[in-house]
Amino acid sequence: MGVVIPFEGSDQKQPSLDPLIALTSTDMVKVNEAILARAASHVELIPELAGHLINSGGKRIRPMLTVATARMCGARSDAHVKLATAVEFMHTATLLHDDVVDESDLRRGQKTARLIWGNQASVLVGDYLLGQAFKMMVETGSLEALRILSNAAAVIAEGEVLQLSASHDTSTTEDAYMRVIGAKTAALFSAAAEVGAVIAARPRGEQAALQLVDDALDYSGKQALMGKSVGDDFREGKITLPVVLTYRRGSQEERNFWKRTLEDGNQTADDLIYAQKLVERHNAIADTVERARHYGDIARDALAIFPDSAHKSALLEAVDFCVARAY
Amino acid sequence: MGVVIPFEGSDQKQPSLDPLIALTSTDMVKVNEAILARAASHVELIPELAGHLINSGGKRIRPMLTVATARMCGARSDAHVKLATAVEFMHTATLLHDDVVDESDLRRGQKTARLIWGNQASVLVGDYLLGQAFKMMVETGSLEALRILSNAAAVIAEGEVLQLSASHDTSTTEDAYMRVIGAKTAALFSAAAEVGAVIAARPRGEQAALQLVDDALDYSGKQALMGKSVGDDFREGKITLPVVLTYRRGSQEERNFWKRTLEDGNQTADDLIYAQKLVERHNAIADTVERARHYGDIARDALAIFPDSAHKSALLEAVDFCVARAY
Repeated sequence: MGVVIPFEGSDQKQPSLDPLIALTSTDMVKVNEAILARAASHVELIPELAGHLINSGGKRIRPMLTVATARMCGARSDAHVKLATAVEFMHTATLLHDDVVDESDLRRGQKTARLIWGNQASVLVGDYLLGQAFKMMVETGSLEALRILSNAAAVIAEGEVLQLSASHDTSTTEDAYMRVIGAKTAALFSAAAEVGAVIAARPRGEQAALQLVDDALDYSGKQALMGKSVGDDFREGKITLPVVLTYRRGSQEERNFWKRTLEDGNQTADDLIYAQKLVERHNAIADTVERARHYGDIARDALAIFPDSAHKSALLEAVDFCVARAY
Repeated sequence: MGVVIPFEGSDQKQPSLDPLIALTSTDMVKVNEAILARAASHVELIPELAGHLINSGGKRIRPMLTVATARMCGARSDAHVKLATAVEFMHTATLLHDDVVDESDLRRGQKTARLIWGNQASVLVGDYLLGQAFKMMVETGSLEALRILSNAAAVIAEGEVLQLSASHDTSTTEDAYMRVIGAKTAALFSAAAEVGAVIAARPRGEQAALQLVDDALDYSGKQALMGKSVGDDFREGKITLPVVLTYRRGSQEERNFWKRTLEDGNQTADDLIYAQKLVERHNAIADTVERARHYGDIARDALAIFPDSAHKSALLEAVDFCVARAY
């Protein structure tokens, strides 16, 4: 349990991911080369489909975390490059399967792979990338990294099934919501950072600390996006934390409104404006941001046990950046 | 290169899988317990959906091979039980994804999971089982077993994509056909047997030999089924080895027939009978059986280097059983 330091800094320069990006750039060139090399196959459809998603402008924050924590912990060999690539492949495989499950047509503003090549190819290429990810982990020879990432793979899939079971269910509790987010997204962020420390052979206490950092990084970033795109989420019937809070704090009549619009998917023109009014009335955005801030505080405490270094500073600033996005 | 011993034995008692089943029964009780325990989750849909397929009467030949080869190689601990369970989970995950890709309604005479719970749940529970499989491999601490099985996972997925790219293509060569079969099915059989030897820490030469045994086991069994269910395969437009041989040996007119019926899926009532006539005319069933026999011979040679034991006898008889099924 760390001491929670209140987040203040509105009159300082805006926090940014740039230091993290700059510090990891040499390693990330190698990661990007490995991504291309490992998505190759004599079966042409595989690099074609995988390349579409790989080149679609994702920020590669997960492999960046692996690289940064490995360097912060003094990694010398290039094993962390393989692990970072494996982490990105796990993420890519999840996105491919996600788009099939959600029947998504767009991702990062581009047509999804399933829309171009079909659901079948997306499922199978996802499986292929997952297999390649495990092959790379094995090549590093780190059973501990394999343990962390195979566990993350199972947790992610479990979270996806949980979300599928609970989709459009307005009676979702904050706890259940946090479990889905934790499993679906935070699990891989945590694992990405943890294996960076593992491959640099640092003590387990520091590894656990890093897990918290990245729970926070993800949670706060995610919340920020949710707050801003509430219109899209509403139209898609997604149960976000602001909705969870508003629903539980509302009257029976208000709950009927949420049931009609999100569970039954029955929406009229004015519903979005009313939804936003309810969210505001129950202070749900502010409280969501408050939670992001709380996790940011825990993250910075977790990093405090590491000796000062450029990588540590960059990670601290990345935490601030994510929290700041929520405002 | 082993000496090929011709297969004869029509006047002996029929070969059977019973000795293999009897010898592995104690270990298989543990495998079955582990399967139930590891398919568990607090997300109810997971054990529900996984259990449907797990309890649908598969023969569990793959984990049986892992157990048999481990025992033949003198395994003492129970690590091979974990690996056998992981192998079965990899197989189950593949079936779940396969049924989604093939849009299958029936498997082993029962409704497929995707028909009951939907494609989405089938994809995700498959992912979950794959994650659990890797967790179990990690628990055994054998990087070599992890290497073999993660490689198999990538090869299987690659084979599935290749099949998807080539489906309904009558110009498939025997070589391409063998590559799909090799990747889709033989890869896991090979890996299942190989990890049995690995976990018992036997020399690499024996492990490679076992790989051949199981390529053969699968190939011959698979061919047998294909020969017998050619009607179903024909209606589904599947390119089997008898079709590959008949197509390549036929006239231009005959090839047009195959293109119309299998590529374009345009079939009339009498087409199946004509198809069977063509297959017979070009001796394609007999030559398919001949290939199964050839692989059976190689398999028995491969087993010859192991000292005599009950497990070795049971595996030899299993080879004969698979070849005999082709007649």
